[in-house]
Amino acid sequence: MGIRLSELAERTGARLEGDGALEIRGPAPLETAGSDEISFLGDPRYAGLLASTAAGAVVIAHGVAVERTDLALLRADDPSALFTAVVAAFAGERARLAPGVHAGATVAPDAAVAEDARIGAGAVVESGARIGARAELWPGAYVGHGASIGADTVLQPGARVLEGVAVGERCLLHAGCVVGSEGFGFDPSPEGWKRIPQVGVVVVEDDVEIGANATVDRARFGATRIGRGSRLDNLVHVAHNVVVGEHCAFAAQAGVAGSTRLGDWVVLGGQAGIGGHVRLASGVRVGGQGGVYGSITEPGDYIDTPARPRREALRRMAAAGKAGELARRVKDLEARLAQLEARGEREIAQHEEER
Amino acid sequence: MGIRLSELAERTGARLEGDGALEIRGPAPLETAGSDEISFLGDPRYAGLLASTAAGAVVIAHGVAVERTDLALLRADDPSALFTAVVAAFAGERARLAPGVHAGATVAPDAAVAEDARIGAGAVVESGARIGARAELWPGAYVGHGASIGADTVLQPGARVLEGVAVGERCLLHAGCVVGSEGFGFDPSPEGWKRIPQVGVVVVEDDVEIGANATVDRARFGATRIGRGSRLDNLVHVAHNVVVGEHCAFAAQAGVAGSTRLGDWVVLGGQAGIGGHVRLASGVRVGGQGGVYGSITEPGDYIDTPARPRREALRRMAAAGKAGELARRVKDLEARLAQLEARGEREIAQHEEER
Amino acid sequence: MGIRLSELAERTGARLEGDGALEIRGPAPLETAGSDEISFLGDPRYAGLLASTAAGAVVIAHGVAVERTDLALLRADDPSALFTAVVAAFAGERARLAPGVHAGATVAPDAAVAEDARIGAGAVVESGARIGARAELWPGAYVGHGASIGADTVLQPGARVLEGVAVGERCLLHAGCVVGSEGFGFDPSPEGWKRIPQVGVVVVEDDVEIGANATVDRARFGATRIGRGSRLDNLVHVAHNVVVGEHCAFAAQAGVAGSTRLGDWVVLGGQAGIGGHVRLASGVRVGGQGGVYGSITEPGDYIDTPARPRREALRRMAAAGKAGELARRVKDLEARLAQLEARGEREIAQHEEER
Repeated sequence: MGIRLSELAERTGARLEGDGALEIRGPAPLETAGSDEISFLGDPRYAGLLASTAAGAVVIAHGVAVERTDLALLRADDPSALFTAVVAAFAGERARLAPGVHAGATVAPDAAVAEDARIGAGAVVESGARIGARAELWPGAYVGHGASIGADTVLQPGARVLEGVAVGERCLLHAGCVVGSEGFGFDPSPEGWKRIPQVGVVVVEDDVEIGANATVDRARFGATRIGRGSRLDNLVHVAHNVVVGEHCAFAAQAGVAGSTRLGDWVVLGGQAGIGGHVRLASGVRVGGQGGVYGSITEPGDYIDTPARPRREALRRMAAAGKAGELARRVKDLEARLAQLEARGEREIAQHEEER
Repeated sequence: MGIRLSELAERTGARLEGDGALEIRGPAPLETAGSDEISFLGDPRYAGLLASTAAGAVVIAHGVAVERTDLALLRADDPSALFTAVVAAFAGERARLAPGVHAGATVAPDAAVAEDARIGAGAVVESGARIGARAELWPGAYVGHGASIGADTVLQPGARVLEGVAVGERCLLHAGCVVGSEGFGFDPSPEGWKRIPQVGVVVVEDDVEIGANATVDRARFGATRIGRGSRLDNLVHVAHNVVVGEHCAFAAQAGVAGSTRLGDWVVLGGQAGIGGHVRLASGVRVGGQGGVYGSITEPGDYIDTPARPRREALRRMAAAGKAGELARRVKDLEARLAQLEARGEREIAQHEEER
Repeated sequence: MGIRLSELAERTGARLEGDGALEIRGPAPLETAGSDEISFLGDPRYAGLLASTAAGAVVIAHGVAVERTDLALLRADDPSALFTAVVAAFAGERARLAPGVHAGATVAPDAAVAEDARIGAGAVVESGARIGARAELWPGAYVGHGASIGADTVLQPGARVLEGVAVGERCLLHAGCVVGSEGFGFDPSPEGWKRIPQVGVVVVEDDVEIGANATVDRARFGATRIGRGSRLDNLVHVAHNVVVGEHCAFAAQAGVAGSTRLGDWVVLGGQAGIGGHVRLASGVRVGGQGGVYGSITEPGDYIDTPARPRREALRRMAAAGKAGELARRVKDLEARLAQLEARGEREIAQHEEER
């Protein structure tokens, strides 16, 4: 049930080079693809794999030279977009939630649910909540009292939006995420930690994604905010009163502590940690496992803990790595200097003797 | 629908300075507050913001001088507590779970559920479990076989307490947390990892919080224990047989490996990691992303990986940061020393010639 | 309701030394055990605890000398296996899910569910899914459209297997884990991040465990793969298109970025992070909080960020720790050298004068 390469080229608008009669079964990475699979060269750094791949065809940019003549090619200006189209051609339709409200869902009588919203088994919509047009609440999803879900937003299985949280349109909340948990705020007292009430909410703007089992805390007061178009990966944590700008991207397991404010297009690598009460300018990118404990005012790449500009951090690491060699050189200097000093003493003594 | 500042002062017992007729709409941070909002100066380090804030009123401690005369003030000895009261004055009532057992909940016939406990849609209480007075199980919460939930304890949506786990009174288990998962214990064998049975439980003492999507593993035998008053933030992990003392506080994404024992008032920063089989004395505080792989017997602040006393770690970091400069100085020394040595050789030669 | 030590020895095949009439109430650690409890010495490093333990009996290897005569002993070649048997003797039976499909579960009419599978309250099995023989879906578990669960596999409460994911036999999916969330793949554009469709699946081979609230993303195309016998602890993240070999073990909060390929028996310590598009050879072990950003071709222990062979990393850390001392020695060398140089100048001047 494959697709002929010539048809694939036609469907995706690609330029075909090679055997159009080839029957392609599906996409695969260059390293593992077989002769009935199509692969993809996006990053020129991996061009070396072209020589060894067993793929029948490869998606590649115009102008990239390929020595092998047995390899069919689909070319386009943007090979990544082309490959996405190729992958889509082979992908089955994703399952959709059945229309309407499942008999096993629990929807409060005074919740405002759009007629064309879809609500699955075991989902719960509490009193005063609003569910927008074409929104989907998959099984086990939860929308708390007075919370609102914008049009075309999807809550995957077990995604939880707690009381009073406002989620925009076209958002994707992945399975098991929690939006609107209480902020972690306590005052110490001799009897123990006293909870500081967290009476704010979370505002999730349009086109945001929140990853599987990620957590976003409600504000102490006012709102924790996730800006339009931002993407949070799995197991990310965003604390109370954080303001995330537009089009930010946080890789898995990154965390942002309370009251921190990020500009737009801020990128956090996996497991990166941002301290509380700091500001990161638009365009700041923090590397994986990086730790930021002060504000950063200039865009660019920052790595290490505490995070520094990438170039400076690499220089610092390289220098620190030479500490062992340096110790040997200092030891050598000490020995040679001691020798010189000893000779100096002897010369002075001799000099005085000679006089 | 604001509150007049004079009324706010009266309700909270604050001393009013300035225009009591001001209508306040709600609380906001100093940096973003408008003229109909009230803000808060708690930390004197932020006093500079007083000059620029557009807030109509500010909560502040007695005795702190304020130059601006257009800024209304509410003063108290403890401005943090006062601001909490102010915030509460504006907060709507939080939603409560409806009384009784929801028709969509599943409660085993032999579970012992207090008459005034509240159990939401989709919550499950297994055989032999006990639910205390006024406890709340929000939708999707789960209480396993023989587990017990103390009086006034709240399980937020999807919080899960597995078989045999005992949770104390007045605890707050946030959405999606798991208490009582199997410990991660395996013996290697040529055929693979063999699971070591984990037949213990978890004991969660009174007044404990466990964050959203956090996980606490059951013991191999005996009990993993979370001491009275301790607070665990979101996505925290506590492994099997760990003993956490009283009033500890773990920030988000921190983790504690198996069989480690912590004293009281131990504080872990975000993403901190504590190795297995170690002990941390009461009053140890580990900074964000810190890594502790040996026992710590003295209270105080520890940072870095491997964690060291804060002052020592900062000194070490500063010294390591000078490795580049040191390398330049060593190179310079080598050149100068070589010159001296060469001169020494020449002098000896000349000396011998002169004789 | 204890067990006599002689009976315990008989049941477990251990060799008894000491008072077989002792009534044992249960197992406990050496440090906290009382006179009616049995403890365990597995690691000879803890042998010192034998002198001070208040345990009534101890499980120990043949041949390990014990000076105390008041301590009853159970001996075997493999004390860990013996202790597991002892623990099991005291453990009550774990609760089992009731047979059949609970009335509160939702199973699609066209799902293929084995007759002896067990499905709990609130669990959901979507259209086209297959549930194997003796498999257990605990309350709140979710199996998506077309997904398959192998024989004897257990989904604990709230474990979620999304559309099209294939889980093998005898797997254990812990509470709240998510298998098959969308991979985190976006292309930047002036209007924001554009989602790259993730049309692949996840293949979880036989005998795999996935920890509580852990997440495994589906592939962009093809499959993310977790190899036979591998064990993932709580809050672990595995990104799209990652291939995990057989018998790997990832401790809690570890994460692996996209398209990375791991061999067999790869061990990741807690909070370790592996970058994207790299390869780790079979037998690589990365320490807690370690960060790997390039491929590793040799088995062995790696620690630190960026990760290095353990021995090299320790040497490097030790050397870096001496940077402060080195700075003092360099300063001393500079002073002494300046003195020598000054004397050299004086001698030359004097020499010329003398001539």
